[in-house]
Amino acid sequence: MKPIIVLQTDFGDGGGGAMTGVIKSIDREIEVIDYNHNIEPFNIPSAAFGINFILPVWPAGTVFVSVVDPGVGTFRRSCVARFTNGSYLVSPDNGILTPMIDKIESVRSIDETVNRLPGSEHIFIFHGRDVYAYTAGRLASGQISYEQVGPEYPVEDVIRFPMTTVPTVVRECFAQGGIFNFDMAFGTPRIAIRHQQFRQIGGFEYGDTVHLNIMDGQRTVYDGNVIYERSFGYTAAGQVLICGNSELGEEQSLRLSINRGNFVKTYMPECDGNTLKALNYVVTITRA
Amino acid sequence: MKPIIVLQTDFGDGGGGAMTGVIKSIDREIEVIDYNHNIEPFNIPSAAFGINFILPVWPAGTVFVSVVDPGVGTFRRSCVARFTNGSYLVSPDNGILTPMIDKIESVRSIDETVNRLPGSEHIFIFHGRDVYAYTAGRLASGQISYEQVGPEYPVEDVIRFPMTTVPTVVRECFAQGGIFNFDMAFGTPRIAIRHQQFRQIGGFEYGDTVHLNIMDGQRTVYDGNVIYERSFGYTAAGQVLICGNSELGEEQSLRLSINRGNFVKTYMPECDGNTLKALNYVVTITRA
Amino acid sequence: MKPIIVLQTDFGDGGGGAMTGVIKSIDREIEVIDYNHNIEPFNIPSAAFGINFILPVWPAGTVFVSVVDPGVGTFRRSCVARFTNGSYLVSPDNGILTPMIDKIESVRSIDETVNRLPGSEHIFIFHGRDVYAYTAGRLASGQISYEQVGPEYPVEDVIRFPMTTVPTVVRECFAQGGIFNFDMAFGTPRIAIRHQQFRQIGGFEYGDTVHLNIMDGQRTVYDGNVIYERSFGYTAAGQVLICGNSELGEEQSLRLSINRGNFVKTYMPECDGNTLKALNYVVTITRA
Repeated sequence: MKPIIVLQTDFGDGGGGAMTGVIKSIDREIEVIDYNHNIEPFNIPSAAFGINFILPVWPAGTVFVSVVDPGVGTFRRSCVARFTNGSYLVSPDNGILTPMIDKIESVRSIDETVNRLPGSEHIFIFHGRDVYAYTAGRLASGQISYEQVGPEYPVEDVIRFPMTTVPTVVRECFAQGGIFNFDMAFGTPRIAIRHQQFRQIGGFEYGDTVHLNIMDGQRTVYDGNVIYERSFGYTAAGQVLICGNSELGEEQSLRLSINRGNFVKTYMPECDGNTLKALNYVVTITRA
Repeated sequence: MKPIIVLQTDFGDGGGGAMTGVIKSIDREIEVIDYNHNIEPFNIPSAAFGINFILPVWPAGTVFVSVVDPGVGTFRRSCVARFTNGSYLVSPDNGILTPMIDKIESVRSIDETVNRLPGSEHIFIFHGRDVYAYTAGRLASGQISYEQVGPEYPVEDVIRFPMTTVPTVVRECFAQGGIFNFDMAFGTPRIAIRHQQFRQIGGFEYGDTVHLNIMDGQRTVYDGNVIYERSFGYTAAGQVLICGNSELGEEQSLRLSINRGNFVKTYMPECDGNTLKALNYVVTITRA
Repeated sequence: MKPIIVLQTDFGDGGGGAMTGVIKSIDREIEVIDYNHNIEPFNIPSAAFGINFILPVWPAGTVFVSVVDPGVGTFRRSCVARFTNGSYLVSPDNGILTPMIDKIESVRSIDETVNRLPGSEHIFIFHGRDVYAYTAGRLASGQISYEQVGPEYPVEDVIRFPMTTVPTVVRECFAQGGIFNFDMAFGTPRIAIRHQQFRQIGGFEYGDTVHLNIMDGQRTVYDGNVIYERSFGYTAAGQVLICGNSELGEEQSLRLSINRGNFVKTYMPECDGNTLKALNYVVTITRA
């Protein structure tokens, strides 16, 4: 069977319609899945973690396409990365690959002189359709090989963003890190502290009451005692809690929640709709 | 052909990406349809009526998965219900089955010791992927039989929520009932009065001007004359009207609308984003 | 292979669930794509441009279904239009075909006495499922021919809306036209001036600073110098710019943007959620 193509953009509702049409015109047999077209506009980290999160559970060989592209039409590389598990990401090279750097086997620059929807040469704002969907469709269909995407370049040259500006420190009874992402359906910040280290080095255990402090420079975002538990369901409604996030394996991080509530709207309303504002927040967890 | 899997969650945009990936990794041939990932967070009744509404029009054998799961990770049963038409619902047993109780042929508790994504044992917050999508995928694929889901338990033990706390009363020129659900795209409350009874027992006819009263305890939510018609298009823009809802057969209920407007935002703004607040509202329709 | 069905409605999240179920019950083999169920409620022009935009990139023979239907249940024709490229649109005849009039080969009125989901005769508010999805499914499946949809009627009788009330005028160093549509993900108005004419007759060139004036009757919506460029990425963050839109071929229009911003929220907040308010706005571009 031909690879599945999985689409992610910040184009909003309906954003996949033209991209899917281009792919289906290339090859009716290719299955196209709309993952998410409501990435926060221009929020490249959110797109990056969105792909990184689902990458391990899709069949090897899946062709992901992610387009959050504030630099569209200017010079920035368009690329296809091939991961060690055989899957691909077709995307602008603008930071999207940051959390997946260690999973890249090789990366190629898309040669737009051949890999571009015929007739789209005068359009500078819709590479999502004209370059990325078109290239992904032809790659998944087998009309071009990975080598025919364009020239390989060093993985070291791939653009990266700071995952967070805050270093992660875990020692006994102490864990500190930045906020690297959000689950906006539930208003949940994801903290760049590995759950396994938090337990094994930090020594925290389910049911512990812990002290949570969040600083935005000198401003206190949150300071108080909270519960560390398996999941929100273990606590009372309205309770603030820390629990393990949903990444598989060693990548599992921590998340902040309010049971049946919304931590972001309650304590970080400035980040609602602009989660990049939390890039410098420092989260510190200690014994209560 | 293998059964289709239909997904519904309150995970927000992108909520199906990991679930679909797990299913496709189990069996590429299974078709997965994203029904709705924007159920109001934690609103189990909304999820329940969402599935109940589409259940009759899908092919027999369809595997629905619905995950609105505020108790995730705690003790509450995970279940697979088999309906009399041969379709299935994979879900937490937390009330979701309430409006479909009479359609259940049998129900089984998911044995998570075998029906769980390998490697997810340390994750307590994403049963949508790790238990429900995984079990649905293996069931639809034929890798497990319905019996292998886990032990059967009595349908009487299935958790139910109050559909509404308000009893339905219909007599000549009088109809009273609660609000059991909403169509939020148009701000339309659905009233727990059967359309057929409203016409046959109540004696109301298309074109009638009727009196509509809605009480929230002692507070008047709405009181005035409105039109009862076939659809909003029969009335002037801005007109409040009652018409039949879109359920097929005897289940057809009533709905309140404003033609080209939004009843909820106009008269029940407290319910916009929290429709559970309307659980005790009493809707009374009489001759004008 | 059987044609793909592409769905568009203003039913909101989950709006395609019942429609897709009806189609899959007719014929499991038909692939159904959810294009967009979040068209602004009742906004027929937005639906019209949504279909017109993607029509050229889908395979010939695709069956589009678009349901924005404020007149549902009253007398207005339901129709199937056949385009010159062999694709179809199943829809109420309420203006949706306006921008595609020149692409229609023929149009037929749906005979609802035969083309209606059995058992739905008492439902007047959900033609999306009961008439349009049902007819599209049977047409795509081959269970009915195009002729069996119902009687043909003259294309001249197809309902049209004013694309904009503002005439388009382009002469040297001067271009004027209305706002015919929006890309709401980025708050971008689309201007009814053809990009090609803007360049060839108007004489504007990439990199030009131009004067942009937008009037709502006597009220000034915007008046100032802006940049005309290939895309937003060519300008500084916060810069207002004019660039070519994303239609293929001669249909390419112009769009207004703020790089990394939202023109509508910033300068036309009255149109946020009600884009029809811009129907009379006059956009004038001159040399700075």
